[in-house]
Amino acid sequence: MKRVAVIHGCNLNLLGQREPEVYGHVTLEEINSRLTALAAELGLEITFFQSNHEGEVISVIQGCLGKAEGILINPAAFTHTSVGIHDALKAVGLPAVEVHLSNIHAREEFRHRSLTAPATAGQVSGFGAESYLLGLRALAGILA
Amino acid sequence: MKRVAVIHGCNLNLLGQREPEVYGHVTLEEINSRLTALAAELGLEITFFQSNHEGEVISVIQGCLGKAEGILINPAAFTHTSVGIHDALKAVGLPAVEVHLSNIHAREEFRHRSLTAPATAGQVSGFGAESYLLGLRALAGILA
Amino acid sequence: MKRVAVIHGCNLNLLGQREPEVYGHVTLEEINSRLTALAAELGLEITFFQSNHEGEVISVIQGCLGKAEGILINPAAFTHTSVGIHDALKAVGLPAVEVHLSNIHAREEFRHRSLTAPATAGQVSGFGAESYLLGLRALAGILA
Amino acid sequence: MKRVAVIHGCNLNLLGQREPEVYGHVTLEEINSRLTALAAELGLEITFFQSNHEGEVISVIQGCLGKAEGILINPAAFTHTSVGIHDALKAVGLPAVEVHLSNIHAREEFRHRSLTAPATAGQVSGFGAESYLLGLRALAGILA
Amino acid sequence: MKRVAVIHGCNLNLLGQREPEVYGHVTLEEINSRLTALAAELGLEITFFQSNHEGEVISVIQGCLGKAEGILINPAAFTHTSVGIHDALKAVGLPAVEVHLSNIHAREEFRHRSLTAPATAGQVSGFGAESYLLGLRALAGILA
Amino acid sequence: MKRVAVIHGCNLNLLGQREPEVYGHVTLEEINSRLTALAAELGLEITFFQSNHEGEVISVIQGCLGKAEGILINPAAFTHTSVGIHDALKAVGLPAVEVHLSNIHAREEFRHRSLTAPATAGQVSGFGAESYLLGLRALAGILA
Amino acid sequence: MKRVAVIHGCNLNLLGQREPEVYGHVTLEEINSRLTALAAELGLEITFFQSNHEGEVISVIQGCLGKAEGILINPAAFTHTSVGIHDALKAVGLPAVEVHLSNIHAREEFRHRSLTAPATAGQVSGFGAESYLLGLRALAGILA
Amino acid sequence: MKRVAVIHGCNLNLLGQREPEVYGHVTLEEINSRLTALAAELGLEITFFQSNHEGEVISVIQGCLGKAEGILINPAAFTHTSVGIHDALKAVGLPAVEVHLSNIHAREEFRHRSLTAPATAGQVSGFGAESYLLGLRALAGILA
Amino acid sequence: MKRVAVIHGCNLNLLGQREPEVYGHVTLEEINSRLTALAAELGLEITFFQSNHEGEVISVIQGCLGKAEGILINPAAFTHTSVGIHDALKAVGLPAVEVHLSNIHAREEFRHRSLTAPATAGQVSGFGAESYLLGLRALAGILA
Amino acid sequence: MKRVAVIHGCNLNLLGQREPEVYGHVTLEEINSRLTALAAELGLEITFFQSNHEGEVISVIQGCLGKAEGILINPAAFTHTSVGIHDALKAVGLPAVEVHLSNIHAREEFRHRSLTAPATAGQVSGFGAESYLLGLRALAGILA
Amino acid sequence: MKRVAVIHGCNLNLLGQREPEVYGHVTLEEINSRLTALAAELGLEITFFQSNHEGEVISVIQGCLGKAEGILINPAAFTHTSVGIHDALKAVGLPAVEVHLSNIHAREEFRHRSLTAPATAGQVSGFGAESYLLGLRALAGILA
Amino acid sequence: MKRVAVIHGCNLNLLGQREPEVYGHVTLEEINSRLTALAAELGLEITFFQSNHEGEVISVIQGCLGKAEGILINPAAFTHTSVGIHDALKAVGLPAVEVHLSNIHAREEFRHRSLTAPATAGQVSGFGAESYLLGLRALAGILA
Repeated sequence: MKRVAVIHGCNLNLLGQREPEVYGHVTLEEINSRLTALAAELGLEITFFQSNHEGEVISVIQGCLGKAEGILINPAAFTHTSVGIHDALKAVGLPAVEVHLSNIHAREEFRHRSLTAPATAGQVSGFGAESYLLGLRALAGILA
Repeated sequence: MKRVAVIHGCNLNLLGQREPEVYGHVTLEEINSRLTALAAELGLEITFFQSNHEGEVISVIQGCLGKAEGILINPAAFTHTSVGIHDALKAVGLPAVEVHLSNIHAREEFRHRSLTAPATAGQVSGFGAESYLLGLRALAGILA
Repeated sequence: MKRVAVIHGCNLNLLGQREPEVYGHVTLEEINSRLTALAAELGLEITFFQSNHEGEVISVIQGCLGKAEGILINPAAFTHTSVGIHDALKAVGLPAVEVHLSNIHAREEFRHRSLTAPATAGQVSGFGAESYLLGLRALAGILA
Repeated sequence: MKRVAVIHGCNLNLLGQREPEVYGHVTLEEINSRLTALAAELGLEITFFQSNHEGEVISVIQGCLGKAEGILINPAAFTHTSVGIHDALKAVGLPAVEVHLSNIHAREEFRHRSLTAPATAGQVSGFGAESYLLGLRALAGILA
Repeated sequence: MKRVAVIHGCNLNLLGQREPEVYGHVTLEEINSRLTALAAELGLEITFFQSNHEGEVISVIQGCLGKAEGILINPAAFTHTSVGIHDALKAVGLPAVEVHLSNIHAREEFRHRSLTAPATAGQVSGFGAESYLLGLRALAGILA
Repeated sequence: MKRVAVIHGCNLNLLGQREPEVYGHVTLEEINSRLTALAAELGLEITFFQSNHEGEVISVIQGCLGKAEGILINPAAFTHTSVGIHDALKAVGLPAVEVHLSNIHAREEFRHRSLTAPATAGQVSGFGAESYLLGLRALAGILA
Repeated sequence: MKRVAVIHGCNLNLLGQREPEVYGHVTLEEINSRLTALAAELGLEITFFQSNHEGEVISVIQGCLGKAEGILINPAAFTHTSVGIHDALKAVGLPAVEVHLSNIHAREEFRHRSLTAPATAGQVSGFGAESYLLGLRALAGILA
Repeated sequence: MKRVAVIHGCNLNLLGQREPEVYGHVTLEEINSRLTALAAELGLEITFFQSNHEGEVISVIQGCLGKAEGILINPAAFTHTSVGIHDALKAVGLPAVEVHLSNIHAREEFRHRSLTAPATAGQVSGFGAESYLLGLRALAGILA
Repeated sequence: MKRVAVIHGCNLNLLGQREPEVYGHVTLEEINSRLTALAAELGLEITFFQSNHEGEVISVIQGCLGKAEGILINPAAFTHTSVGIHDALKAVGLPAVEVHLSNIHAREEFRHRSLTAPATAGQVSGFGAESYLLGLRALAGILA
Repeated sequence: MKRVAVIHGCNLNLLGQREPEVYGHVTLEEINSRLTALAAELGLEITFFQSNHEGEVISVIQGCLGKAEGILINPAAFTHTSVGIHDALKAVGLPAVEVHLSNIHAREEFRHRSLTAPATAGQVSGFGAESYLLGLRALAGILA
Repeated sequence: MKRVAVIHGCNLNLLGQREPEVYGHVTLEEINSRLTALAAELGLEITFFQSNHEGEVISVIQGCLGKAEGILINPAAFTHTSVGIHDALKAVGLPAVEVHLSNIHAREEFRHRSLTAPATAGQVSGFGAESYLLGLRALAGILA
Repeated sequence: MKRVAVIHGCNLNLLGQREPEVYGHVTLEEINSRLTALAAELGLEITFFQSNHEGEVISVIQGCLGKAEGILINPAAFTHTSVGIHDALKAVGLPAVEVHLSNIHAREEFRHRSLTAPATAGQVSGFGAESYLLGLRALAGILA
């Protein structure tokens, strides 16, 4: 049974409260529940982590070595500023999928560039909580 | 029953033959078959179109008015150069999902920018043929 | 009697339906009617053409040689991306006037630059359907 | 009866003398006469102002509040450097039309950008003195 | 008793009328009254000047030599375009404080850069009329 | 009684020791004392936090929900590199004021841009410790 | 016997009429005749195609698979704007040579960059009709 | 006898007082005296003008038509921001020489570009008051 | 006896496992051993620290005050994104040497710029583990 | 009989040894032999020169006046950095053809721009040694 | 008696022959004669040097130490590309004056930037051979 | 016994005299002596070369083939402007180490970019003469 680590970047713990016109009303717990259900359906083990610290995200990615076969990550604001997360993903070399709740191409200029995506297999953005579920499916496909 | 128009941009008719190390070995027919199967499962009607002409892509998008409720589009090379496709998607105002076979963020600099994505709900990129299937699921979710 | 070819670029066939908050409610037929009336008043023969294909726009411009003395063109989205239309206008060497429904200087950054305008006598932008009528008057003045 | 203030920016007092190969041989007085005649035809009251001072142009725009219903402005060189005129036009909130004698898109790079146009309804450029008359027609249409 | 010259740049005479959603409803007279009251409290003599002319602003700054010990300036639109005001502030060498009614970092890109701020001690922006009062306090602190 | 959270970003714990020619001789404790005194005068409750971790700054901002009505923040070096702090400020939606000890417009090019200021009401920079006191006054005004 | 497809991009059908001071007086028919004669000399079969449509150029390139061993292409204006032609050349993987009548490095800035050249073996530019003949020789050398 | 108009731009009236480490200790009166003496030696009539207003500089340049045969101008801060002075110099078409007290290439980045120099015969910069005298000699040479 | 603090930035704990084709096969422990041996030879006391947190790196740098006379730092990914580490190095004012395992000038564009190097005495890059030893020698030279 | 000077820029003396995967295995002597043979065939006199010195290349170009009727030049690395060679080619005013062994458009970004090509009739790049032979043919055509 | 070394950069040996519409008809010998005459008048010893080699120009500048008190240099094309000449001028620390025959601000974009001017006292450009004489006067003034 | 060629670029012959506040007081002879001593210690044969000519530097690099096993180079000003030295280093393919006396990241913007470093194994910068010795150790390590 393949193991997937879901990593949520900064401010995602506020989901549901935070700018709902941009990010929707669903909470992180609800997203995690829906991911748990889908993981079961896809035959995957799943664990969750959220942090507002770039450093913790890096450490958790590193910790996936030997504990997970794939990574589902929403780097949130770190997407646009973290070379360290890029390097961590490259370093562990596990298949990773990047997801975003909002359509990053349709927002501020500084959100168009992803520093982390080149270290992943691919990206899903713009479908709210659904981005996570589609990302998990994509990852399941790669792990299969 | 919701209708979805699948629009493939330029050079995608060569799929399977064209640079398989970048785009994979699956053909456009196989992608269409897999989309047809998934559409049936999701309760969607589905039609297909491919063109190497930006103008035809624009006209087909316009033609969706009254004939489809959603658009699944891989603009291929036009992604990076067509304001016209952007404007057509805005003009018809139907929910649209953009898909890419390869991870556009991990390729040449000129493929990082998408002129068309801001006119869509979201984007799936990097998962080969699977990008289309995930994109169709995303669109089904929006249409539901 | 001088002949004027009116050339409408991509998506203008949708006029009246397409984003009326940006482009207004008037249709392309109504614009053409108003242009026909004004042409009569100004003593000009007038013909119309619309296409979503950059290539057709280029060919129609070329076809004006010997069939028209002036060109009234709204290149729409092609304004910002087509060196080919610029070259066609230069090649035929007929007086041309560029028109835009919306004020291109007050919209997205990528609409501020016109690749085609340097190949025309001048530009009218921002007055909705009225831009066409003013452009025809400008062209009549040049042809006189 | 609607009142229109015509505002000519710097160096336009030299018209007819100044680089006639770029700006033509007509003088500012002739332009004003032709505008007066057209205004009469269109049922508009018209007044004229010219200054080489950005500050006077700003003050005259401000003075239009309660004295004019529309503004026809050729900011000349200030087009490319004045945030102050942009702000004045925004501040008074009257419909304004920007005109240029020459085709600004076909000249030096630094003349392609208009800082003032985003504060106007639209722009007419490239038709010599005729640009003013077309601009007045455009303004008349907006005021109607 | 220290003397402070308050200098208001272009379009600020329209305050209260001009785009109140951006600049608020208070008038320049009210700002001046509030500044007068605060100056009294802080033991400062205070004088006021407003101009739409960059040249007058430069001359008034020069005139402060021997007539004021500090300058409180809102260069308004000149903030982003005037090397001359920067040079005048440097030339007189008096402590100066720059204030802005709106948050210049949260507006158009061209308002993010201040050409004049490097010639001042510091800047207060974003608090409406309150920016002036805070700026006066800052200046009083420097003069003390 | 309104509550204000004061958040000091990285390296500010060294204040007084660190490059005194740029940042002055006052310590963070002294700034906090002066803020405490002014808060009492303004009828505000006040708490303090300093961290060298972007992640802790983000978490503390989030923790303000329900515990504070306003935020006074000096993001220090994070000002120029943190999208995460920007997003946290947007997410909690509390009025915030950004302060800087030095005049960021008069220093290195990379300090001219503030990524965080657009998520605040306004900014005070350049007055040393006084910037904090002016910022608290500004915040008090907004909370009133 | 090796087969070569000669592909002429947009506006080249006007050759001889179009801006002869830039492009010379020779017509496309004359170029084709001279190419036919040289092909015979070099022992090559040769076919010709011209289009003003980027999409047709793409399709013809694709159609070369199995019908030609080499491509001689003058993408004309598409050189600077078409990712699609670049991708088509890469997709078919046939040796290709890019030619230009004029010296693209000595013209407008926007003609200095070639989007298509990186997908070809090399480029000949600046020698008028002779560029085609030299390009054919280059291609013959590669095919040998 | 040829007549030369000397035009001093903004802040030059402060010369001698203003940042002497950059601009030296000589006053504008002394410069004018030395120019008067040199003009006599060179057989030139000479007049002087200084203004802090870009508009006045423009008007004075215009007024040179028929009153002077050459212009010696130090546009000071306007050098870097005034298209209007550039246009005025072009409009009158008199030989002009631009001078600067300091070496503009060795100062802030924004002083490296001269918007006005392309409208003059040449430029002398970096020699303090001596720049004016050298500029007058250069102008005398052109007028001879 | 001079004390040196060795600070390893993010992802360096993975050394030996992480992309060995870029970073080599040696582990961080081996590097530390080799540094310990060299320090003994050079008569230096040496301590080690590694963190994936920018904030911890900042705090450790601050903590060097009074505990070390020099800093040997490989900021890794933080090199390109951290103004905070730059400011911490400036704040403590101790001699520091920056080292990199790989040649940053020969890798991705975004690794060419070092935000931290201007706050150090110098930089050694490209020699794998040897970069650390050379850096320690450089630091010893400065401390001597 | 027309005389042609062949000028090889820096590092071309190493041809055959130097990075053969980029530049091929042929030596400069072989290229010169092949050029000599072709020159004979084309009825041209031919001389050769190679230098690693930009200054010698400039001097040799100058020396062509009166000694050659045309120049065939591969400026190699100087292509991208030498204004001096550009100016020398302009100065002598002889027809010149620029050649490159590799396809400069398909290599590093800094090789895409040619500073020297605008001073030549045209350019041949990408065909290895064949580029020289094609270039000589092009030059023969111009000299005829 | 002060000694001045005159250094002419690349291609200046061709003066009189080279593009006379840009550089005039006077030869380098004539310029040198006129400089010799003026030097005598100013009481200066003068020597001349010209080279097409950047390296020789650097060496000659170095050789001025102990042999000259001032340098008059026209770096020609090297002005825009040589950090080495800049560094040599800084290294010897002698007063230097840069001169240009043509107005570099009125020519191609790449001639607007001077890499060498920041290492000189000032610059004279645009007056043909007269630029040298004015530059010598400027240098004489500095040496006095 | 491995042989190392030490190559000093332009202006380094002036070391000790040239801007000692930037480059220190040590002379090139002293650096060479110290390198000779260290080479003996490391069991390396060593030779020295200095030139102010880019072309000579290129030729010396080429001459290393068969005469040296490694190159220690300080390209000085050529670091930022020479594609030719980059190409020469690539062409000979010997291990090379780049050294700089000063910290290039802490100086003018134009010294931050190294065109030559990508053709070397690595770089040492900022430690004065010590940079050479560290660079020699680095090279010894590579050659071992």
